[in-house]
Amino acid sequence: MEPRLNSEDLQRAAKDHLWMHFTEMAAYNDAEVPVIARGEGEYVYDDHGNRYLDGLSGLFVSQVGHGRTEIADAIAEQARELAYFPIWTYAHPRAVELADRLAGLAPGDLNRVFFTGSGSEAVESAWKLARQYFKAVGEPTRHKVISRNIAYHGTSLGALSITGLQAIKSPFEPLVPSTIQVPNTNHYRAPVHGDDVEAFGRWAADQIEEAILQNDPATIAAVYVEPVQNSGGCFPPPPGYLQRVREICDQYGVLMVSDEVICAFGRLGEYFGATKYDYLPDMITFAKGATSGYVPLGGVIAREGLMEPFQREGEAFLHGITFAGHPVAAAAALANLDLFESEGLLDNVRTNGPVFRATLEKLLDLPIVGDVRGDGFFYGIELVRDKETKETFSAEESKTLLKGFISSALFQAGLICRADDRGEPVIQLSPPLTCGPEHFDEIERILRKVLTEAWSKL
Amino acid sequence: MEPRLNSEDLQRAAKDHLWMHFTEMAAYNDAEVPVIARGEGEYVYDDHGNRYLDGLSGLFVSQVGHGRTEIADAIAEQARELAYFPIWTYAHPRAVELADRLAGLAPGDLNRVFFTGSGSEAVESAWKLARQYFKAVGEPTRHKVISRNIAYHGTSLGALSITGLQAIKSPFEPLVPSTIQVPNTNHYRAPVHGDDVEAFGRWAADQIEEAILQNDPATIAAVYVEPVQNSGGCFPPPPGYLQRVREICDQYGVLMVSDEVICAFGRLGEYFGATKYDYLPDMITFAKGATSGYVPLGGVIAREGLMEPFQREGEAFLHGITFAGHPVAAAAALANLDLFESEGLLDNVRTNGPVFRATLEKLLDLPIVGDVRGDGFFYGIELVRDKETKETFSAEESKTLLKGFISSALFQAGLICRADDRGEPVIQLSPPLTCGPEHFDEIERILRKVLTEAWSKL
Repeated sequence: MEPRLNSEDLQRAAKDHLWMHFTEMAAYNDAEVPVIARGEGEYVYDDHGNRYLDGLSGLFVSQVGHGRTEIADAIAEQARELAYFPIWTYAHPRAVELADRLAGLAPGDLNRVFFTGSGSEAVESAWKLARQYFKAVGEPTRHKVISRNIAYHGTSLGALSITGLQAIKSPFEPLVPSTIQVPNTNHYRAPVHGDDVEAFGRWAADQIEEAILQNDPATIAAVYVEPVQNSGGCFPPPPGYLQRVREICDQYGVLMVSDEVICAFGRLGEYFGATKYDYLPDMITFAKGATSGYVPLGGVIAREGLMEPFQREGEAFLHGITFAGHPVAAAAALANLDLFESEGLLDNVRTNGPVFRATLEKLLDLPIVGDVRGDGFFYGIELVRDKETKETFSAEESKTLLKGFISSALFQAGLICRADDRGEPVIQLSPPLTCGPEHFDEIERILRKVLTEAWSKL
Repeated sequence: MEPRLNSEDLQRAAKDHLWMHFTEMAAYNDAEVPVIARGEGEYVYDDHGNRYLDGLSGLFVSQVGHGRTEIADAIAEQARELAYFPIWTYAHPRAVELADRLAGLAPGDLNRVFFTGSGSEAVESAWKLARQYFKAVGEPTRHKVISRNIAYHGTSLGALSITGLQAIKSPFEPLVPSTIQVPNTNHYRAPVHGDDVEAFGRWAADQIEEAILQNDPATIAAVYVEPVQNSGGCFPPPPGYLQRVREICDQYGVLMVSDEVICAFGRLGEYFGATKYDYLPDMITFAKGATSGYVPLGGVIAREGLMEPFQREGEAFLHGITFAGHPVAAAAALANLDLFESEGLLDNVRTNGPVFRATLEKLLDLPIVGDVRGDGFFYGIELVRDKETKETFSAEESKTLLKGFISSALFQAGLICRADDRGEPVIQLSPPLTCGPEHFDEIERILRKVLTEAWSKL
């Protein structure tokens, strides 16, 4: 596309007018704003022509990679045919076709698709559905949500209330009452059962039961869990953990929400994390990878039973979103799923996931690499000051290390990933599902170089 | 686009899998789900080939009309070049260009653009910005929001808290504390000064001051107003009202948020309602018409001063949205604004707005039409039981009349608009900005026929 501003004007305009997200704007007082101008497959290019391996799929979204003409053509055709129409009392073909297809891919009787425009909106919609559902079935006191420490579930005020990262909640309080956080499944730093992952998983799940009991079971609406928790650096579920959570939810009449905004659509080698780990939640939330990010779309897939009270005469789920089920977004999702099938992307993740892991595990010979964890095409690498004692970095070191050096060094070396310190310092990796061993090697090579240099700077 | 399901399968799939928004699903037990399949200019067509004048621009979004190849081509080109990249610490050309362009169009020093993916997210982001801003400048107790009765500001839990429609809040409470509702500018049903619109406006604005005083000025963060309030059926601001609100906000150190999700981008004949009515808010929220709905996009435009605390070393607005400033959405917005310019759409609204009003005012000869109000290409028609006394319909009559007859009769007669009873019963009209007298005549003709028949059924 013909640029409307040259590189110099782009810099000026970015600094004067674009309020970047989760960004210290002062960092660009004397530095260039990095401008990513185009993408092709697993790589993106900045406006100076430098190439980067997109190790984060944008932001956990670009499953099929960049520049896919199949999706571009589909959205253009849809935009010419019908670019927008609401699904408020009307329907349009693409929303129906996509709902039909998602219901077919989702496990069990998760058959009812409530579309949204984003992951935050999906998380909010699931909470709203739980709240109105319980009021409709005569349990009006059930409104609370349990989620896990350091878990990220979105940033709109409802979703933020469920999020377990206090640092990004404090500036915006008071939030929606009442949310309760329980321990996550970080086995690397397990406070108990560090030597027995199954026992640890049982303990972590039982913390949910304890929270339900402490906060009055009759007031608890839902438990939100990601199949693999992203924030904190990829905490997979211990064996049996998610089954135990399901059991606890059943015992206390609480809904189980599988927040799959990141984990769905192939990230773990299945369409849904619930399939991968074999549990049946009451709702699945999704977004990001559903369209590989080509057009914003999200949604909730709910079990049949959740719709029952809303199928009575005169009843309705009193919720709606203008852009939900957007025709162009739905067309993008359908074309995206076509690519999943024609290119066997789930198979690629199943085949190459272990190769990716093995390649990253080579880094365990570095003194700064404490842990490599994750599943599928989704890994976190925890950085430590002392590998033996698992001693982490001080807040100051973490800041100097991650923000001051590693982030920019990785970018300069041609790798886009995320150096995150919302829990312990971690490198997050989540490349396009089209990647193979050559990309893993490139990732490992760059990480090895930068992490070695980082260690020498300590 | 080649349909993936035929008409019959579409019906089955819609009923089995698509959870429609704000919809009584039981209404389709024995009836077809209306499926809108394509659009062209001011018209859409269902899957049986029936034509409808889109009198609501989808849902207040399709400013340039349906099927515009210029936008379809732009989004395809952008999707091939770079479909997605986040604006979290990075930028990409289209987001920068759009921020630059919006800053140029927005009034005064409203120069800082924080993108979102929807109107709800824009409303939420403005509240989050206000809350963190006040904490950053040493006024941490300012967290409350004042908004107006019956005003709709969105449905995510934060936005819903600001919304003034209790019926769509109750199922989802408890919400975010603390929001306060004040009277809106419904002059047709003014409790005082029914004969003097300026005095009424002064009174309505002063209710905001009273609410600020009653709730402790040191705790009030923001006042949200739409330039013309949509819900309730188009309440324009009385002369001087918005200026008085600005004055009150200044007096008590409260931020003024102009929620222009519906009113911006030509709906009132200017890019922004603040320009139309000549006031300078601290933030403008936008969405819908920014892309004419071709791809979801929203945002907040903030005054320079609001960014100052976030420009300090080490500080950041701790908020972010994956799909915000989406490259394809930004490309759609830029192409949309190009059409505004090349086709003189603001001029068309300025020229034809009075014609639209005059055409609708012909309906005032019907006994059921109590009031026609609005501005630009944005009108509400209030239906009454008794024109002289302004007696409204009972809840039961309103339900039978709007849901039972008028909505479907208008649709069958070929007009898409909205029969809404969230306040008094009203017909809402908001056609594409490309419309001219022939479309207004068609709208009037259909309304006259259906409203006459509705009256005869009472």
